[in-house]
Amino acid sequence: MSNPVLVEVLRGSHIESRHSGALALVDADGALVCALGDVVRPIFPRSAVKVLQALPLLESGAAERFNLSDAELAIACASHSGEPAHVATSAAMLAKLGLDAHALECGTQWPGREPVLRGMLARGEQATALHNNCSGKHAGFVCVACQMALAQGHEPAEFARGYIEPGHPVMREVTAALSGITGTDLTSAPQGTDGCSIPTFGIPLRALALAFARIGTGQGLTPLRALAARRLRQAVSRQPFMVGGTDRFDTLVMEALGERLFCKVGAEGVYCAAFPELGLGLALKIDDGQVRGAESAMAAVAEGLLQLDEAQAALLRGYSDMPLNNWRGVHVGQVRASEVLRAAIRRR
Amino acid sequence: MSNPVLVEVLRGSHIESRHSGALALVDADGALVCALGDVVRPIFPRSAVKVLQALPLLESGAAERFNLSDAELAIACASHSGEPAHVATSAAMLAKLGLDAHALECGTQWPGREPVLRGMLARGEQATALHNNCSGKHAGFVCVACQMALAQGHEPAEFARGYIEPGHPVMREVTAALSGITGTDLTSAPQGTDGCSIPTFGIPLRALALAFARIGTGQGLTPLRALAARRLRQAVSRQPFMVGGTDRFDTLVMEALGERLFCKVGAEGVYCAAFPELGLGLALKIDDGQVRGAESAMAAVAEGLLQLDEAQAALLRGYSDMPLNNWRGVHVGQVRASEVLRAAIRRR
Repeated sequence: MSNPVLVEVLRGSHIESRHSGALALVDADGALVCALGDVVRPIFPRSAVKVLQALPLLESGAAERFNLSDAELAIACASHSGEPAHVATSAAMLAKLGLDAHALECGTQWPGREPVLRGMLARGEQATALHNNCSGKHAGFVCVACQMALAQGHEPAEFARGYIEPGHPVMREVTAALSGITGTDLTSAPQGTDGCSIPTFGIPLRALALAFARIGTGQGLTPLRALAARRLRQAVSRQPFMVGGTDRFDTLVMEALGERLFCKVGAEGVYCAAFPELGLGLALKIDDGQVRGAESAMAAVAEGLLQLDEAQAALLRGYSDMPLNNWRGVHVGQVRASEVLRAAIRRR
Repeated sequence: MSNPVLVEVLRGSHIESRHSGALALVDADGALVCALGDVVRPIFPRSAVKVLQALPLLESGAAERFNLSDAELAIACASHSGEPAHVATSAAMLAKLGLDAHALECGTQWPGREPVLRGMLARGEQATALHNNCSGKHAGFVCVACQMALAQGHEPAEFARGYIEPGHPVMREVTAALSGITGTDLTSAPQGTDGCSIPTFGIPLRALALAFARIGTGQGLTPLRALAARRLRQAVSRQPFMVGGTDRFDTLVMEALGERLFCKVGAEGVYCAAFPELGLGLALKIDDGQVRGAESAMAAVAEGLLQLDEAQAALLRGYSDMPLNNWRGVHVGQVRASEVLRAAIRRR
């Protein structure tokens, strides 16, 4: 059975393209509050679960030992645009360990933000691993590695090497956190390699949504993990720029909504989110993997669930019903959440 | 009823994303040789029909009057990458009319090819309408306008102005060609504005495929139109670089196959193609609009239909079963045509 259309792309008044997908909205007891499409089939959540992968950074005591700031905790949960503040923050985390960009194993990536990219090119600069959208997450992994090494009397940089491998103590800890909070046995889950070279696991949307309900409420978590989740959400709400960047959905929306919404995009059309005041977690996947579909659907869900002021509503509407302009700036169409999606959220 | 999955995206051995779509393969009498999904619902063909929109350039006598070269005819059918040779060719067409980039109404667009874009930025250069992927098509429209103006004793540049408007004589001629060769009444068709500001019309895949069977064979066309179609296909096969550019699918495939295949991508996941030796025309649309799906499906159809040597087969296979690497160059997955698509082409 195929998933319903969650987002439509119009040209003139005709639907030109369609994004089908699936969505699960779950409470902290795991009850499905709203489901569209197949929420049981495993999907790769990719970067949407970075906040879950950052739990060991807090739980291990690394954040405390290295005195990580809000910005540093936020960038550990980020898919950032490689802007100067992002590069500086990831570099500062590594500097606290006495390390630099060479410790990162995420690979080199040019900044996602075009004006930043253009400026670098115009100045003849080279991209580094610090520009990689995952540099903060990886800097966080290196912090955990150093914490583990120091506890055991190992040389930190040497111990950290290979932290991206599934069998490395850091990645085993990260995978255990992901498995625990989603309630999913990952040993039998589909497995792939992510863009930044760490393993990614196939997890049902329903289980991902439960994890985010737990992140938002602390319910079903040990006191230490609940504290870690709260601290990460708080850091992101204080430094939303770090989690994305200029003109990025996650940054703009969390700037506007603060701790009322934690949301995070993942590659190939994924969104995960926590709505703490409602006690709900959300996970959605656009079948074809396009971010325009994922953002539009995410915005429509937030619009449908939250009481918003005018500015907040206008911001979300700009994604859930986004005008499309052509090369001459002429309005030619719209990307909009489908009535099927809106009605399902209304009915929940 | 939803369309079948034509292309799958794998991460590891698990399907991460899916591109559904529809496809029509039609002979020059209009018989459906193969159909997948809904081939009757109108879709916007976008740039995939540029060769149809270029027919008046030949039929009006403009190509002859302005002594257009193979390169110039090819770029009139192009969605090029804005490389120096493309810019020079579009500029040369306009120069033959005594005009320059100011005559183009397609809007400014930075080159699609990243190294070219980077070079321009590093040198502090600005994009112009000549860099727009449609600059050749628009230069062709301006040629038609000048031809019409000269025939009627009007001032060419003044007559050309507004050629992108549906009611302008040039656009009426272009729309009539599109209507005629697809056998579709466009007055009642869905209508939108294309990225380059000309009208685009909703046309069923089946009718688009018929048009391309006609382009490939000349069957069902007046002698003058058949000649125009043959001349455009010939020009593109001689100058395939002009139709796309470095590392572009259409360019690479037509460099390898010459006049055996005419294929053209369109925005939002469209492909149209002519297989002259088989007397067949193809039109396909990926529902979600992604080019990776459209290219993969197009390659699989060509693989299934044509006798290929090893190099040709390897080239197409590189799209129909394309390896995906991550930021560190690690192989992480595959974009591949679905067995549903391959089997349908085999069975035809």
